[in-house]
Amino acid sequence: MIKKLYKTHHIASGRVVEAVSYDGFSPLRRQCYDRLMVIGVYGLGRFGAFWAQHLSSLFTVIGWSRDETRPTPEGVRRVTEDELLSADIVVLCVAISAMETVLESIAGKLKPGTLVMDTCSVKVHPSKAMMKILPPEVDILATHPMFGPDSGKNGIQDLPLVFSPIRIDNEKADLWRGYFSSMGLNVVNMTPEQHDEEAAYSQGITHFIGRVLGELDLNQSAIATAGYSDLLDIVRQTCNDPWRLFVDLQQYNPYTVPMRRDLHKAINVMLEKFDSINVPRED
Amino acid sequence: MIKKLYKTHHIASGRVVEAVSYDGFSPLRRQCYDRLMVIGVYGLGRFGAFWAQHLSSLFTVIGWSRDETRPTPEGVRRVTEDELLSADIVVLCVAISAMETVLESIAGKLKPGTLVMDTCSVKVHPSKAMMKILPPEVDILATHPMFGPDSGKNGIQDLPLVFSPIRIDNEKADLWRGYFSSMGLNVVNMTPEQHDEEAAYSQGITHFIGRVLGELDLNQSAIATAGYSDLLDIVRQTCNDPWRLFVDLQQYNPYTVPMRRDLHKAINVMLEKFDSINVPRED
Repeated sequence: MIKKLYKTHHIASGRVVEAVSYDGFSPLRRQCYDRLMVIGVYGLGRFGAFWAQHLSSLFTVIGWSRDETRPTPEGVRRVTEDELLSADIVVLCVAISAMETVLESIAGKLKPGTLVMDTCSVKVHPSKAMMKILPPEVDILATHPMFGPDSGKNGIQDLPLVFSPIRIDNEKADLWRGYFSSMGLNVVNMTPEQHDEEAAYSQGITHFIGRVLGELDLNQSAIATAGYSDLLDIVRQTCNDPWRLFVDLQQYNPYTVPMRRDLHKAINVMLEKFDSINVPRED
Repeated sequence: MIKKLYKTHHIASGRVVEAVSYDGFSPLRRQCYDRLMVIGVYGLGRFGAFWAQHLSSLFTVIGWSRDETRPTPEGVRRVTEDELLSADIVVLCVAISAMETVLESIAGKLKPGTLVMDTCSVKVHPSKAMMKILPPEVDILATHPMFGPDSGKNGIQDLPLVFSPIRIDNEKADLWRGYFSSMGLNVVNMTPEQHDEEAAYSQGITHFIGRVLGELDLNQSAIATAGYSDLLDIVRQTCNDPWRLFVDLQQYNPYTVPMRRDLHKAINVMLEKFDSINVPRED
């Protein structure tokens, strides 16, 4: 039933794109179309729960987590793994390093025509894994919502979502660009390679600095400068994310190797400046 | 003339404190008292010009710079060095590393009863230098406004100012606490030693990280996370300040030695984690 509705929906995608771009459709009629599609969020960890809740503003969302103690996000219906995998769209919210294992385990259970969408913080590795492991009848879209429960706690309006169509026809890709745009997101088209290179020197370096400073046990200060308050925000935000995300983000993005090398070099340059300067003695 | 008015003002400090704490004084009457005092800002560099302009909201401010090409800030009257040194209050806005030379050069020209106030980003070194070099008839107050033209560009309301009375009677110190409070600042009482220790691990570490990242030529990105945008803000703010401020801040604050050592250790801990992890090969 769900499948059938989704297919109708997909065939009528020209009209639905119109709906998303607000042409000639009342909000109610648009909402009816969107609600026909069932999105299954696979993994309800810190990010998965957050993303499922946001998707539920537009779609019917079901969720599953291997950890039964994880709470069910508002607006999401908790289902079994099998029911999850029968959804029109399966959104994978699992650790980067778990992707291959998860794909091997679900590949045989997906119906032809399902759209599998990942949300990993690296894009080359999961895109290649999805192409290698998922059956050819399954569509593949790689995404990276560049925000999470901390940076998106006051809403996700205008925040970037990286969009890489991997194996999906143009019409369907346009439909999804429209959906994400209608959620208020800034949809940025990029290849997985472009994403990983740019993310290594932005998100990757931020997480690295945040974790380094996290080792130092820095405290809030009555004499904090604006810059120091920003620095504490970065530490809080990066250290709130799972340790595994940090390690995976560095390990599975090959461009973080030159990033860490450049950073190491810059730190040594700066440290050497002061090794050669004597601190003045106070008498 | 100016001197005489200030002395009257100082003798009447009980009333003036009342004025600053808003008890029984009309804003106009308060303003008259404040305006009688002449503040001389010695040095109109990036910070000096900014601070002189803010002080002029409450006081009559005159300014001098050895560099004649520096613009005169709004609300400030440009004077000769000799006239500057005849002000009731001399606020030194010079580089930390220039303090001793400047103090040697002005010490003989100050009238008894002058209050000399520094604004350096370290406090132990200038406090000791002022005590050593300035004649005993001159009052000494060490301050560190924890902001500058970048972090204070939208106003200085609630920003911290570190306040260390070095050689000044309690009544006069209270008067100045009141003045700074009435400018909207958060006046934080600290000894120079407390300041330097806390600043090394807040402002000092922020400038160090900002300058390290400044070496990397990071760019604005369409897929910037909130954390990365904060990081770029830090780089911009710290690298906008003079290079000499950065070097002096590290060199003249002895507590930055353990800070840099701790930072170096934390970075190596983090780098070693990834040296021992192979980046997965994509086939």
